[in-house]
Amino acid sequence: MSQIFRNHLEKFIKINDENFEEILSYFEVRTFAKKANLLEEGQICKSNYFVLKGILRKFFINEKGTEQTTEFAIETWWMTDNISYEHKLPSEFYIQTVEKSEILVISNDAQEKLLEKFPVMEKYFRIIYQRAYASSQNRVKYIFSLSKEAFYFSLMKKQPAFVQRVPQYLIASFLGFTPEYLSEIRKRIIS
Amino acid sequence: MSQIFRNHLEKFIKINDENFEEILSYFEVRTFAKKANLLEEGQICKSNYFVLKGILRKFFINEKGTEQTTEFAIETWWMTDNISYEHKLPSEFYIQTVEKSEILVISNDAQEKLLEKFPVMEKYFRIIYQRAYASSQNRVKYIFSLSKEAFYFSLMKKQPAFVQRVPQYLIASFLGFTPEYLSEIRKRIIS
Repeated sequence: MSQIFRNHLEKFIKINDENFEEILSYFEVRTFAKKANLLEEGQICKSNYFVLKGILRKFFINEKGTEQTTEFAIETWWMTDNISYEHKLPSEFYIQTVEKSEILVISNDAQEKLLEKFPVMEKYFRIIYQRAYASSQNRVKYIFSLSKEAFYFSLMKKQPAFVQRVPQYLIASFLGFTPEYLSEIRKRIIS
Repeated sequence: MSQIFRNHLEKFIKINDENFEEILSYFEVRTFAKKANLLEEGQICKSNYFVLKGILRKFFINEKGTEQTTEFAIETWWMTDNISYEHKLPSEFYIQTVEKSEILVISNDAQEKLLEKFPVMEKYFRIIYQRAYASSQNRVKYIFSLSKEAFYFSLMKKQPAFVQRVPQYLIASFLGFTPEYLSEIRKRIIS
């Protein structure tokens, strides 16, 4: 399973067997059941999560008491609450498994030590954060520019496997509309 | 003026005089008039911009033909269109000065060379992107969770100097509402 992580690292940096084993020793592999909370609102987010298998989602509970999903992470994606993780502040988010998942977990302290010991990991994380930031910028653009329906079509086109795999009510929560509205759009597509 | 950049670097990494001079040689200092376009839709974004003095904003033109501002950068903030910059794709955005600005400009190629020559800059940019990503995640949360009015109040509370400095129609564009609506909210506050 750790080969998935090694392949991902090697997309961005060069690493030998010995170094990889040592890098891996900073992480813990954990299996979580479906709908397990890795982080809850109010807790300090002490870990950074890399998905080996499964799906994570991040959400917050809005003033109406509804879960608003802001991000998903599938295989080889990282997820954490960056503000809580970096500044050791209580989180406003939940991080939850969408299905049974195998996750590579690193604590904030271990990540600091890893970066000190292996400066090449600075490059790896620089690229990871650069890309995550770019996606997040695009998400802001989509929220402002696309109609709800266009947003759904764009997601279907770009991430068809993902739309198949994730329950529809979570897709609705990510797009910011009700499951009923999503169901209507889907009916319109079929007919 | 370059001292502003040095102070910023030294918040995150250690650097001596000789190295700083060499690092600086990868950049160009440029002065732009108010409302100058550093990037236009359709162009490939070849530079990364660090604000020494002034303000930049990033916007796109939506289907109604209105400018929708997605980001601002004030002193010591970086701005680029990351997707266009990294993947050499035509940009969907404009980057424009809000006032006369002095900008430290680095090209994509120069930045790659800088990172190779000074691996400590990987750490610097890792932290920069990590924080930019965190802000962007928060922005997504605010868009979904706050009412338009609450969004404006939150911005006023967190960035009062910024709200004073930026023309109101740009604040409106950032918050996703019309200048008229913003004007109404402001009248309500005063009365």
